[in-house]
Formats: sequence, C-alpha cells, structure tokens
Amino acid sequence: MADIMKVDQIQMRLLEEVADLHEVPAGAYNIRANGQLAGRVNSANIEIVSKEDGTGIDIHIKPGTKRESVHIPVVLSQSGLTEMVYNDFYIGDDADVVIVAGCGIHNGGDKDSEHDGIHRFFLGKNAKVKYVEKHYGEGDGQGKRILNPGTEVTMEENSYMEMEMVQIKGVDSTKRNTTANLAAGAKLIIRERLLTHGSQDAVSGFVVNLNGDGSSANVISRSVAKDDSSQTFLAEINGNAKCAGHSECDAIIMGNAKISAIPKITANNTDAALIHEAAIGKIAGEQLIKLMTLGLTEAEAEAQIVNGFLK
Amino acid sequence: MADIMKVDQIQMRLLEEVADLHEVPAGAYNIRANGQLAGRVNSANIEIVSKEDGTGIDIHIKPGTKRESVHIPVVLSQSGLTEMVYNDFYIGDDADVVIVAGCGIHNGGDKDSEHDGIHRFFLGKNAKVKYVEKHYGEGDGQGKRILNPGTEVTMEENSYMEMEMVQIKGVDSTKRNTTANLAAGAKLIIRERLLTHGSQDAVSGFVVNLNGDGSSANVISRSVAKDDSSQTFLAEINGNAKCAGHSECDAIIMGNAKISAIPKITANNTDAALIHEAAIGKIAGEQLIKLMTLGLTEAEAEAQIVNGFLK
Repeated sequence: MADIMKVDQIQMRLLEEVADLHEVPAGAYNIRANGQLAGRVNSANIEIVSKEDGTGIDIHIKPGTKRESVHIPVVLSQSGLTEMVYNDFYIGDDADVVIVAGCGIHNGGDKDSEHDGIHRFFLGKNAKVKYVEKHYGEGDGQGKRILNPGTEVTMEENSYMEMEMVQIKGVDSTKRNTTANLAAGAKLIIRERLLTHGSQDAVSGFVVNLNGDGSSANVISRSVAKDDSSQTFLAEINGNAKCAGHSECDAIIMGNAKISAIPKITANNTDAALIHEAAIGKIAGEQLIKLMTLGLTEAEAEAQIVNGFLK
Repeated sequence: MADIMKVDQIQMRLLEEVADLHEVPAGAYNIRANGQLAGRVNSANIEIVSKEDGTGIDIHIKPGTKRESVHIPVVLSQSGLTEMVYNDFYIGDDADVVIVAGCGIHNGGDKDSEHDGIHRFFLGKNAKVKYVEKHYGEGDGQGKRILNPGTEVTMEENSYMEMEMVQIKGVDSTKRNTTANLAAGAKLIIRERLLTHGSQDAVSGFVVNLNGDGSSANVISRSVAKDDSSQTFLAEINGNAKCAGHSECDAIIMGNAKISAIPKITANNTDAALIHEAAIGKIAGEQLIKLMTLGLTEAEAEAQIVNGFLK
C-alpha cells in the first residue's frame, strides 16, 4: 500500500491505528499525510473534491447511494506541523453509507504537532450514516500531540446517524466539540470512548438540538482517566419539539486523575422527554480481587477491566 | 396567638402556611413580621440574639441540646417592603435539634415585596439538625413576591443535616443558592420541592463540597413547572476526598413551561464516588386516562398526580 499511496512506514502504522487500514480501502478514500494529499479515489456515487481555497475537501454522496464507504484518514509524522482542515460531507437523500475518519500523530521531535479538523455533515431526507472517528498519538519527542476535532451535523427529516468517536491513546491535549441539529424524525446516536493518561487533558462537549417532532438522540460517553490526567465532559441536549433525548456519562478514575461531568438538559417544549445519567468512580475492589485470585497481577486486572469498559 | 405575638390575621395565615404554626410554638422562636420583631422566646439551651448592627439574628444552641426546636418564620404583608436578613445558627457538638424557617409574603399592592435571607449553619462535631424551610406567596396586587434565600452550611466531623426546602405556591421570582462544606464523616441530605406557575421564574443552585473522608451527600430535587413558568436547576458536587455523592433531579413540565437541569459532578480524588441523574418529562397520558376513568376530570387528575409527585 505504501507504494501505491505516498505514505511511509510510520504513516502506514498510524493509518492502521486510526482507520484499520492494512491495504488500499475499498470504496472512495482521501488520505492526507503531513498536510499533503497522499492518495484519493472516487467512486461512481461518491466524489471527493478539494476546496478551491485549499482548506479541505468536499465529499459529495449521491442520493440513493447504498452500502458504500468513504475513508478520509489524516496522519502527521512531521514534528511541529500545525494544520486546520475543513471537510464537508453532503449525503444525498436515501443514501446509506459508512464514513471512516481519524487522525494519527507521530511526534518524534520537540515541537508541538497539531491537527484541528472541522467536519460538517449534511444528511438529506432518510439518509443513513455510520461515522467512525479514531484519534491516536505516539512518538518519544517532547513535542505535544494535539487534536481538536469539531463536528457539526445537520440532519433532515427521518435521517439517521450513528457516531463512534474514540480517543484511546497518546493524545496530549484535545478539545472536542460536537453540535447536531435534528429535524422531524431524525435520530442520532453518539458513542464516545476516551482514555487519558500521563498529564493529558481532554475536554469533550456535545450540543444536541432536537428541533423536529419525533427526533431523538442518545449520547453515551465512557471514559477512563489515569495518572495525572484530567477530563471534562459537557453534554447539552435541548428539547425544542416532541422529542426524546438521553445522555449518559460513565467514568473510571485512577491514580491522581480528575474528572468533571457537566450535563445540561433543557425542555423548551412540554412534549420533550429528556434524561441524563452520570457516574464517576474507581474500579471496585471486589472486581480487582476476583481477577487477582485468577492469577492476574493488580496491574493486569486493572488493564482488563479498563479494556472491557471501553470496548 | 395574634394577641400574644404582634401579628395580624393575614400574617397569622402566612405563619400557618410557612411554619405550620397554629399557636405559639413549643421551644425557642423568633417571629419577624414586616421587618420588625413580632415575638421571641429563648429556652434554657437555645438563645436567640439580635445582631448588633440590626441585620439579623444569631441562634446559639448549646452542645448536647436534645430534641428541641427553633422556629424563625418571617412574614411580609406590607406591599413594597424589601429586606435583606442574615441569620446565623451555631449548633453545638452532639446537639440534636429541629429548625423551622420559612417566609410568607402577602402582596396586595402594586409594589414588589422582597425578602432575601442568608442562613448560615455551623454544625459542631456529631451535631444533628433537621431543617425545614417553606416559601409561600399570595395576594392580588400587581406587585411581585420575590424570595431569594441563600444557605451556607459548614459541617464538622460526623455531623448530620437533613434539609427540606419547599416552595409550593405564589412566589413570582426566586433565586435559591445553597452551599455546603462537609468534614470527615459528615452527612447531608437535601430534599427540594418546587412548583412554579403563571409567568414565575425560579433558579435553584446547590454546591456541595465533600472535603472529608467518609463524607456523603444526597441532593434530591422534584419540581413541577406549569403555564409559562421557567425553572433552572444547578447542582454541583465536588468530591475532594473518599466520599459518596448523589444528586437527582426529576421534573414535570406542563403548559408552555421551560425547565433546564444542569448538574455538575467533579471527582478530584480517586476515592470519590459520584452519581447524578436527571429526568424531565410530562405526565404520562396513561396515568391521566387511568384517573379519568375513575371519574376525575383531566384537571383533577393532573392536580392529583402533581400533589403526589411533590409529596
């Protein structure tokens, strides 16, 4: 694959981490490496076009496109690179597609590397999207690995979107902002998984506006904060119509970490039904002891519980 | 009773509403009517002293005082009266007392009537307090009935406080602020019940700091917003030690009301276990229909459900 697309071995490994890419992906794709286009393929139904001002790409998915996928991973292996990218997805009526994004940073130098990506999704009527976004950092340098993703979702009548947003390892600082506006009958599911360690800092914010009758949203966040890391979770659901909203934030705290969960549910309509749940706690001692009696060390037992929790 | 204490018939009715007083209370009391002292009695163990600067009263409860009560209701029947009062409660070690506060406003005029009361509680080691606070408004005047209570609680080791804070009717505008700091082993239970109607506006905020090992807090809010009223509920629990915190906000929305719930749980210690739950919704249709088949009108059925919910 590294032959076909202009990526080196480090970038190849990052692509595996963030987009599960071991070979050239099926379907349309656009790969960005160190700020440059490293490979692009369109399909009959999916067209990827660079923005004229060079700030990002537009992805046009034709109405009625079924069971196709788009991969648009970004990798940075050059220390000190800072970039801001705007990607817009236009998903036609009745389309049913999978979109895989993600960003991997290898920083072996002393300068900070930063990728700020703004993704905007426009879902047509009855369109269905599964969106997967993974963030990953590695490298021994003193330079920080910074990722600030912004996601804006506009959902027309009866559209459906499922988002999986994962940050598993190595990102020093992240500010995540996701905003969604739902028309009548639209349904949004967000699953976020976040792990911070060392002295990492993560802020994750969601604002979901349920504007149309019959719209619904389910925001589920699971996170683990280890060592001296800190996390802030903000989830806002506004019920402006006959709608249903649920948000849930479960967090495991370890070491000297700090976690804050600040949900906000607002009913501006009598027919809005909104629920929020949040829990922060450490791993229960009994769970650890149980696994340790099976022969695991305490560290192994913790790792197994954390992996299960974030799965 | 109106003979013994300097209160008139309107004030007498207000006292019944906010302090369940039909006669002179047993135990110590201090009754404030239209900004003036209308009656005061001390007991052997409980001494009520006016502050020298006239801004309020200090209530001293001797260590070891058992099964005594203090009533300190406030009534306003003069339109346009605005007052700010500071009351400080010093509860000695091992004391076990009931404190009943509350404020009733009758506003028959066109000017706003406002009572802002700041209550500070200092609980000694092992002290136990049950605190009841009721707010009530009435009167046909155009003037608003405004109540802004501030409550600050400082709890020493192994002290216990149970707070019942109720605002059932007729208060046009309220900003409630409650802050508590808990030392090791201290336990705080807050039950809030709030009903807003017409174009009323209520903001209720809690900040609970669990500073000592073994401290715990349970904040339970139930509210109903009718007509064009609006409510905002803010609950913040900070876990700074090995502690347990739970906050729960259930709200029924009716008419064109608006309700916002913004909890915040923060674990600054790995041994803090914090949980929050919130739910906003309207009365389920099936519940109404069930009561209506028993012969109630829709309005009667709604009233019965609301009363049960706020009980």
